[in-house]
Amino acid sequence: MTTRREHDLLGDKDVPAEAYWGVHTARARENFPITGTTLAAYPHLIEALAAVKEAAARANAELGLLAPEIAEAIAGACREIREGALHGEFAVDVIQGGAGTSTNMNANEVIANRALELLGHAKGDYHVVHPNEHVNLGQSTNDAYPTAVNVATIIAVRQLSEAMVVLEKAFAAKAVEFHDVLKMGRTQLQDAVPMTLGQEFGTYAVMLGEDRQRLHEAVALLHEINLGATAIGTGLNAAPGYAEAACRHLREITGLPVVTAADLVEATQDCGAFVHLSGVLKRIAVKLSKSCNDLRLLSSGPRAGLNEINLPPVQAGSSIMPGKINPVIPEVVNQVAFEVIGNDVTVTMAAEAGQLQLNAFEPIILHSLSESITHLGAACRTLASKCVSGITANVAVMRAYVENSIGLVTALNPSIGYAAATEIAKEALATGRGVAELVVEKGLIPAEELAKLLRPETLARAN
Amino acid sequence: MTTRREHDLLGDKDVPAEAYWGVHTARARENFPITGTTLAAYPHLIEALAAVKEAAARANAELGLLAPEIAEAIAGACREIREGALHGEFAVDVIQGGAGTSTNMNANEVIANRALELLGHAKGDYHVVHPNEHVNLGQSTNDAYPTAVNVATIIAVRQLSEAMVVLEKAFAAKAVEFHDVLKMGRTQLQDAVPMTLGQEFGTYAVMLGEDRQRLHEAVALLHEINLGATAIGTGLNAAPGYAEAACRHLREITGLPVVTAADLVEATQDCGAFVHLSGVLKRIAVKLSKSCNDLRLLSSGPRAGLNEINLPPVQAGSSIMPGKINPVIPEVVNQVAFEVIGNDVTVTMAAEAGQLQLNAFEPIILHSLSESITHLGAACRTLASKCVSGITANVAVMRAYVENSIGLVTALNPSIGYAAATEIAKEALATGRGVAELVVEKGLIPAEELAKLLRPETLARAN
Amino acid sequence: MTTRREHDLLGDKDVPAEAYWGVHTARARENFPITGTTLAAYPHLIEALAAVKEAAARANAELGLLAPEIAEAIAGACREIREGALHGEFAVDVIQGGAGTSTNMNANEVIANRALELLGHAKGDYHVVHPNEHVNLGQSTNDAYPTAVNVATIIAVRQLSEAMVVLEKAFAAKAVEFHDVLKMGRTQLQDAVPMTLGQEFGTYAVMLGEDRQRLHEAVALLHEINLGATAIGTGLNAAPGYAEAACRHLREITGLPVVTAADLVEATQDCGAFVHLSGVLKRIAVKLSKSCNDLRLLSSGPRAGLNEINLPPVQAGSSIMPGKINPVIPEVVNQVAFEVIGNDVTVTMAAEAGQLQLNAFEPIILHSLSESITHLGAACRTLASKCVSGITANVAVMRAYVENSIGLVTALNPSIGYAAATEIAKEALATGRGVAELVVEKGLIPAEELAKLLRPETLARAN
Amino acid sequence: MTTRREHDLLGDKDVPAEAYWGVHTARARENFPITGTTLAAYPHLIEALAAVKEAAARANAELGLLAPEIAEAIAGACREIREGALHGEFAVDVIQGGAGTSTNMNANEVIANRALELLGHAKGDYHVVHPNEHVNLGQSTNDAYPTAVNVATIIAVRQLSEAMVVLEKAFAAKAVEFHDVLKMGRTQLQDAVPMTLGQEFGTYAVMLGEDRQRLHEAVALLHEINLGATAIGTGLNAAPGYAEAACRHLREITGLPVVTAADLVEATQDCGAFVHLSGVLKRIAVKLSKSCNDLRLLSSGPRAGLNEINLPPVQAGSSIMPGKINPVIPEVVNQVAFEVIGNDVTVTMAAEAGQLQLNAFEPIILHSLSESITHLGAACRTLASKCVSGITANVAVMRAYVENSIGLVTALNPSIGYAAATEIAKEALATGRGVAELVVEKGLIPAEELAKLLRPETLARAN
Repeated sequence: MTTRREHDLLGDKDVPAEAYWGVHTARARENFPITGTTLAAYPHLIEALAAVKEAAARANAELGLLAPEIAEAIAGACREIREGALHGEFAVDVIQGGAGTSTNMNANEVIANRALELLGHAKGDYHVVHPNEHVNLGQSTNDAYPTAVNVATIIAVRQLSEAMVVLEKAFAAKAVEFHDVLKMGRTQLQDAVPMTLGQEFGTYAVMLGEDRQRLHEAVALLHEINLGATAIGTGLNAAPGYAEAACRHLREITGLPVVTAADLVEATQDCGAFVHLSGVLKRIAVKLSKSCNDLRLLSSGPRAGLNEINLPPVQAGSSIMPGKINPVIPEVVNQVAFEVIGNDVTVTMAAEAGQLQLNAFEPIILHSLSESITHLGAACRTLASKCVSGITANVAVMRAYVENSIGLVTALNPSIGYAAATEIAKEALATGRGVAELVVEKGLIPAEELAKLLRPETLARAN
Repeated sequence: MTTRREHDLLGDKDVPAEAYWGVHTARARENFPITGTTLAAYPHLIEALAAVKEAAARANAELGLLAPEIAEAIAGACREIREGALHGEFAVDVIQGGAGTSTNMNANEVIANRALELLGHAKGDYHVVHPNEHVNLGQSTNDAYPTAVNVATIIAVRQLSEAMVVLEKAFAAKAVEFHDVLKMGRTQLQDAVPMTLGQEFGTYAVMLGEDRQRLHEAVALLHEINLGATAIGTGLNAAPGYAEAACRHLREITGLPVVTAADLVEATQDCGAFVHLSGVLKRIAVKLSKSCNDLRLLSSGPRAGLNEINLPPVQAGSSIMPGKINPVIPEVVNQVAFEVIGNDVTVTMAAEAGQLQLNAFEPIILHSLSESITHLGAACRTLASKCVSGITANVAVMRAYVENSIGLVTALNPSIGYAAATEIAKEALATGRGVAELVVEKGLIPAEELAKLLRPETLARAN
Repeated sequence: MTTRREHDLLGDKDVPAEAYWGVHTARARENFPITGTTLAAYPHLIEALAAVKEAAARANAELGLLAPEIAEAIAGACREIREGALHGEFAVDVIQGGAGTSTNMNANEVIANRALELLGHAKGDYHVVHPNEHVNLGQSTNDAYPTAVNVATIIAVRQLSEAMVVLEKAFAAKAVEFHDVLKMGRTQLQDAVPMTLGQEFGTYAVMLGEDRQRLHEAVALLHEINLGATAIGTGLNAAPGYAEAACRHLREITGLPVVTAADLVEATQDCGAFVHLSGVLKRIAVKLSKSCNDLRLLSSGPRAGLNEINLPPVQAGSSIMPGKINPVIPEVVNQVAFEVIGNDVTVTMAAEAGQLQLNAFEPIILHSLSESITHLGAACRTLASKCVSGITANVAVMRAYVENSIGLVTALNPSIGYAAATEIAKEALATGRGVAELVVEKGLIPAEELAKLLRPETLARAN
Repeated sequence: MTTRREHDLLGDKDVPAEAYWGVHTARARENFPITGTTLAAYPHLIEALAAVKEAAARANAELGLLAPEIAEAIAGACREIREGALHGEFAVDVIQGGAGTSTNMNANEVIANRALELLGHAKGDYHVVHPNEHVNLGQSTNDAYPTAVNVATIIAVRQLSEAMVVLEKAFAAKAVEFHDVLKMGRTQLQDAVPMTLGQEFGTYAVMLGEDRQRLHEAVALLHEINLGATAIGTGLNAAPGYAEAACRHLREITGLPVVTAADLVEATQDCGAFVHLSGVLKRIAVKLSKSCNDLRLLSSGPRAGLNEINLPPVQAGSSIMPGKINPVIPEVVNQVAFEVIGNDVTVTMAAEAGQLQLNAFEPIILHSLSESITHLGAACRTLASKCVSGITANVAVMRAYVENSIGLVTALNPSIGYAAATEIAKEALATGRGVAELVVEKGLIPAEELAKLLRPETLARAN
């Protein structure tokens, strides 16, 4: 392997000649052999880092701290990365020590070397464009990295939100489709009173809509960035006007309404917005899991279960039991939810462990949030397309449950009185017969009037 | 013991003659011998239940469903309870099955018997005022109980918020007091660059302020109630106009801007707002715990620790080591934080386990949230009064750290140049001497100019 | 209120004259106004503290460090406490800072004052029996308290184990009772192949038995104590032979085979055994919750659910729906399980937060473990007596599910061949008819032979 | 792309001609687009699946159910896979619904197609070797998959255990190296009494040893397998003798002492052993994290921290602060610990969510456990080689802390009496002078005798 020699605090080190990353990345690769997954797995983070670095270069050029041609080369490299180039060069493990320093240095090195190429120089000619002195100018890991994490998370959450809309619409469409399908409502798994299947599916849609609103509120907090804080928020060694300029450029580059935090010392050490977002992701997971539990329960059977709805078959369910179809799509969503709930504990512990002026554990926070966000998004899209949109209703089964139900008597209370209702309930329980047939048989309500009372719009107030 | 005989679905049962609770409470007491702590531990819940029952009674009277004198007696009993009476009669265990039914029935029974007394009847004369047919009229546990839980939580959170203000002010006062106390900032526990102790304490105040804002947003969601939903949200058997009237009366009674949820089926089964609130409480716990970790670290020593600040001594620290004082107040706050974080997992699991039209596990959600809210409030007040307000600074110790620090050289970069700075840093590391004295000794910066450069307002941009 | 004046490091302080606790307890009561629940809630801990103090007094007397009559008075006071006296005098909040110092000092003070009385002196005459110099002689909070926590936990777990046996036997009895009740087994909530209800209940018993074995292994680790370690495990100021003697006396007093840890420095800071025990309690909670989920599912209905078993009614289920009975006992057990799972996170965080030579957060560990252990025990006993032992089977319903099941065809594969089985399955699905009747109708298997094939012992291998 | 057409319950589907996987895998790939990571990430699982399939093939051949040449071809394919071949063909996402069915079918298809090649047939010629009828013969996903998960986990844990030994030895070596380095012990971050640095590092070694013992106990539970249980544990359609033979062959193939569970119905649904193992992994994480917290604290500084030890520099720590070195290796271990603790919650939720005869969520349990086990192993090795083995001690700094400490007076109690000791302590606190110099100055102890009293072996009982 051809190599080039680089140098850092610890001495010389050879890196592959073709690598855009340099000595700092090389050491980090050796220091953190944890998961085998590199930063390349997080395109949002890489694009956000490139946006931050471009914003800083532009601000530095504007303030006369960086020569225009170098700033332009850096910006050019950043644009390429944001368009998808060189992601494979982000080669540090996703779980890493150092509060993001290795990620920041990886970005600095890749951008410097690409800028060098754009200027017609060889990789490693750092006297022309230096990872630290030019690309990282005016920055510290402690402001550049958290700002990139914020931007990356905002972008990722936007995609999750879109996936949630898809699922919400799928549920809402079913709510319309099943608008007049009467069924028994259940509380504590015991027969309660009638409702419609449309109401049941409408609930899932409404829940998602509320969750999405919470998600938007949580992500709004991430628009407050600490670029310009440098090491600990005091802005030591950052030029006057830099923070303002860098933020303005970042707004332009990303199109996001980011603002500089009012208290940069606080903003540099605080992980509250991540804990908050993780809590909201957990909330979404809880509700999704609950909805999937319901779908699996309502489709249980086909003979020895509730059998109220049918999930579309998407794969054979068993090698040993011919014809068995399992609710595999809700099941995978349940599992994503369990993962997100576990990740929330990880984020919580990492945030609590921050000490004094910086939280050193932001990499695992980013890692956990990224997993939660992208997996939830995939889960929502899969649930919508592979399951919800193909659900059909066993109308007759549900109708029979209602007619056969003791709970029906609750609705007849106003018509026949509490005393007669109680007698009917008792007889139904003792004989196993239905409330409706008993009421008609005893002449308490004529059949046609009973039919009216049992209309969905009466029983379930479905409108 | 004198008893009176009551009757329910399961048959006859004797209850103590003097008890305001009846047969349903009696059974629940036997069924749930779990913690030994009764609902009396949650005055907010009891007062909220009384408010809901009074609102319902007024609405029913208004709609002509309840005789005015009975409604007035019920309202009178509720008022007494809201003023603190009869709390000991709420005798069911805080951890209970049944989705809150036992709590609701306990309230119905106590209110009915007190109303009977107010009307000059004996306890148990339910043909006059019946727990179920009068006190619970138009309600189901599934709307009355969640509404009361919401109201109780809103009130409890208000008190937590006040306690947070107290702590926030204590931190803010220290931020002012320590405004010009220079110290080393630390990242990853390694010396970084200078800042002021005022900035450090200011951060804790700012964090609390942000957390409090999140808390208010979270609790706002609880103002949406499902009163009028009855069993599953379809409002079966609730009179037209009842939901609107009950909500209006509840607003008047509590002074809280509660509104009826748009989708009552969804509202009856959804625990999203509780999961959300629990997530915010966890966020507060994380930040409080981090702040207390810092306080314990900064006050470590007195000789073999950082020794930057002194926490006021509040009790002797050791039986074996004379004179030892320990940071017991931050320690107790840490432990409350750990409890709150654990409670969040409990709330999460309970919310996820809800099935179909109702979450049966709201009692443990209420229990966990109540503990978290009240313990956090106590922790904030204790931390403010017993610790933060008495903290003193070891100004000379901190100043010596700064002057002795290698990190100081970062600030001299602009004055003496990077090359000279690096040489100074190397010599300081090798000899153990201070950067400042070396700079003066070598004539790089005159002593008086150096003094200016090392002013807090220059180094820490503290203003 | 009559008072007596006591003195400590912080100065003078009056305590109620009748109080057995003294100045240290008085300060702690003011310092930790968190939960309102005092140590009196944990009789096991109080008894264990008394046992440790008695063991220390005996060891000190044996080594000639304590006058025999003082040692005897201390031992006498301890015996009374172990028999239930003076528990109300343990007056510090269960959530407290200080690594247990306040609990230890509370014990020292109560024991000293009771010993004084036994010797004919007034409370507060500490020159005769001093809380610190006599009762705490040779000890530090850092060894006396953890040893007491271990002993208390061992005793509490023993009672949990007994409760688990009760529940295990209740499930096992049902396994025998339902030995030949044929039913459909379900995987992923879809009909699978037949089994017996006895097998289903037998599983719950076997799970509990395995859990109990794990519990015994976990609690065995707690028999390793650090008495004699003093402040940090180096045994500074403990007399030679003290650790050995104190451990020997503790064995005699408690009857527990406790041993002194091999590495006292490690033992003084390590909370591994508590984390381990908490993990096992969580395991028990997970399995109990799963079993209760099953019970609730199997008893769902009565008309629109599985309706395979009936849980005994223990209270009315609804104020609005006449005759509704809910599975409140399994529900309360679910909630205890969620609490235990949350407590495990609390214990985990507290253990992780330990620093250097001591874990300061053992009080919240004790609190969480105590809650988990006692609530799980109560849940097991309640589940056994109020639910499992009264469960009845709907034999005909289950039989009908089997006969009506498509999954039955799996069992007929060997008799009629895969091709014919597939045809039967298809026809059953299309027509809604049963596999058995189709097989008989088509003459594939004579009715009497089919009856044999469908015997529980054949289908379910139940033996 | 060349394709071949395959068929399943849902109809025809084309798969790439060169793929060893078939129609079931193809559908699963479409159904579960969650993480983008395929089963190929878990070599242990793939090897374990191959071992199970080979064991089943041999058992079936032995029982005359499978033609010898087909069994031999299957076994041959399995051997190749166990040696590392075809792992890329395990192409289903690691997070998947279906209780492992897709993983099992993926294995069946790959093995069948490779066996076909070995027999000279084309891929897809399933009439010769069929994924289901031959490779899966006598099995269900519900026994083959859990058995493979057990075997895979046992192998993975073995490697974790080896990594823990490496770290344990590194700590133990430092305990020896630092055997006579005197330092202050600290409790609650406050100066306590002296000890040696060797004792401190010895503790970390002892903890790891205990954790490793718990790990071995936990993994022992996984040796109980349910092969032969088929769908729900009743063994329906498994030939007599099959379970025994398959288990025997699996023992021979893997060299692991696996045994068939006594109660197969219980074993098929129970995830207790996974919850237990996860709890032990969490325990290891808690202790590792605590140790790393200590290492970071003890190495804090260099000037404004404790500065007792030096961690070897492994990378530059800051772009903005020249010469800053951060504790990045302990930091990455902390983050792995937080991940493991979060994963434990995921495992807990997945286990609790199991219903009736099967836990459908075993894939996420496997995924979480695999991450935890492999990341912990990597963390241990990294911590040992990149950090612990290079740690050096600042002996003079630590000695100065001891000599300057007030806590030292505790050790002089027996020599100079409590009263004099207290006076010395007071004067030391007031003047800032050291206890030792005051004692000598006042002629309380001659300098040479004091030197003896302050020997590590006296103060710290280090031996």
